[in-house]
Amino acid sequence: KKFTAGAVSTKTTDLENKIFRQKTGKKFSQYKKEVEAIYQPDIFQEEPEEPLSKPEIYLKPEEEIINPWQLHQSYIFVQVEDGLLIIDQHAAHERIIYEKILHRIHGAPAQTQKLLFPIVIELPSYMTQTIPDLISENLDIFSKIGFSLKTFSGNSIVIDEIPAELSDWNGGDVFIEILKQLEEEFKETEDFRDSIAKSVSCKAAIKAGKRMTRKEMLALINDLFACEVPYFCPHGRPLIIKMTMTEFEKRFKRIE
Amino acid sequence: KKFTAGAVSTKTTDLENKIFRQKTGKKFSQYKKEVEAIYQPDIFQEEPEEPLSKPEIYLKPEEEIINPWQLHQSYIFVQVEDGLLIIDQHAAHERIIYEKILHRIHGAPAQTQKLLFPIVIELPSYMTQTIPDLISENLDIFSKIGFSLKTFSGNSIVIDEIPAELSDWNGGDVFIEILKQLEEEFKETEDFRDSIAKSVSCKAAIKAGKRMTRKEMLALINDLFACEVPYFCPHGRPLIIKMTMTEFEKRFKRIE
Repeated sequence: KKFTAGAVSTKTTDLENKIFRQKTGKKFSQYKKEVEAIYQPDIFQEEPEEPLSKPEIYLKPEEEIINPWQLHQSYIFVQVEDGLLIIDQHAAHERIIYEKILHRIHGAPAQTQKLLFPIVIELPSYMTQTIPDLISENLDIFSKIGFSLKTFSGNSIVIDEIPAELSDWNGGDVFIEILKQLEEEFKETEDFRDSIAKSVSCKAAIKAGKRMTRKEMLALINDLFACEVPYFCPHGRPLIIKMTMTEFEKRFKRIE
Repeated sequence: KKFTAGAVSTKTTDLENKIFRQKTGKKFSQYKKEVEAIYQPDIFQEEPEEPLSKPEIYLKPEEEIINPWQLHQSYIFVQVEDGLLIIDQHAAHERIIYEKILHRIHGAPAQTQKLLFPIVIELPSYMTQTIPDLISENLDIFSKIGFSLKTFSGNSIVIDEIPAELSDWNGGDVFIEILKQLEEEFKETEDFRDSIAKSVSCKAAIKAGKRMTRKEMLALINDLFACEVPYFCPHGRPLIIKMTMTEFEKRFKRIE
C-alpha cells in the first residue's frame, strides 16, 4: 500500500523554513535532501481515511491574537477558518520531539544540558542483556541525540550531558524509564533508532494534566505544524481532531 | 407520552433561588406554585434519548476562575467536571428570554425601557387581519411583557415602552420582525402566549457571530442554568452539547 502521511505537502512552507533555520542555521529544503526520510515503521498500514491539509490559523483583522484554550489541562483548542482543532498536548509534543531526535540522528545539532555533577546509573538487574548491548553498540547515536554516556564494567553507566528536552530529569530515574520503554519498542520493531526516538520523546513530552500558558500553547502549535507528520503521534494514534462549523450546526440541529 | 424536560429536577436550587430573588424579590419556590407551569407546547413529542442532569461547574481549588471560551463568536465552551459543555449562544439566550417572558405573562414584573419619543408604527399592508386582531385582543399581555402599546384606527400602533431585552430596537423595525414571526408561530400553535414569547425571545436574543466578554459568557451560563428547561431552545432544538473526557480519549485512541 502507498505510504502517505495525512496528505502533507512535500513543499516546504515559509513557517517550516523559518523555524528550521532558527534551530539549525540551514535551509530546510536543503537539509531534507541530505537526510533520509523521516520514518516511523509501524504507523501507516494504510492510507488515512480522509486526507487532511495543514490548516490556516484563523486570524480576522479585528482579532489581534490567536486565542488557544486548554481543556482539563490536556487538550488544546484552537479556532481555524472553518471550525476548530483539538490537539492532544502530550501526543503533539511527542511528535515534535520524535522528529527532532530523528533529525539529530541524521546530523542536526543536538540541544543539550550539561549535568552539574555526572551521575552514575546502575542498570536494574531485571533488565535483560538486550539493553546493555544496545547501549554499547549505539553510543554514537546516544551522543547525537544529546546523551553523553560512558559505560563501565558491569552494569554501570556514567552520564554527564542529556538532551535539553528532558526537563524532568529527576536524578536519572527518567533514564531508566526510557530504557524500559526502549526494550519494549525494540522488541517490536528491532529498529534501534526508531525505538530510542519513540522512548525519549514519550518520556520528555509534556504530560496530560499540565497547565500551559498561552505562549506555551502557541509554541507547541507552531512546532507541531512544522513537523512532517503533524497528525499522528509516533505510534500512529491521531493527535488532532478537527470539527467544522457545519458539524456543529448539524449537532445543534441548526441545519439538517 | 410523559412530558419531561431533560430530567430537570423540580426541586429549586440555591442558584435559582438567588437569581430569582434578585430579579423579583420573591422566593422562587413560592412563585412557582402561584403560576402555571412553564410550557412550550411543541417541543416534547417524546422523552429525550438521554436525560441530562444539570452539570456542576468545575472549579478546582487552584483555579481561581471559570474560564469560558468562545468559538467563532457563536459557541461558548466551558469545562465541567467530567468534560466539556458547548453552548449555542443564540439558542441559550432565546431560552432565557422565553422563560422570562412566560414568567411575566404569569405575573413577574417586567423590566422595561421607556422610549425617548413614542413611536408610531404602521403595520405593513401584507400583514393579514390576524395580527391587528391578535394585538387588540392581547394588549394586556403585551403590557405584561413590557410593551406599552396603543392602537389607533386603521393599522397604526403607538409604542412608548419596550422590554429591556430589546437592545437593538432600531427605530421599531424589530417590532415588525416580531409580528412577522408571531404570525408564523401562531399559525402553527394557535397559542398566543407561547407564540409571542417565542417571537420576542428570538428577536431579542444575542446573535451568532457576536463576540462576548468573559463576564457576558458567565452571566449567560448562570442565567441558562437557572432556567427550568436549560437544554432546549423554545423550538425544541438542543442548545447544549456535552463531550466527556472519555469520549475525547476514545476519539484520540488513548483508550479502546
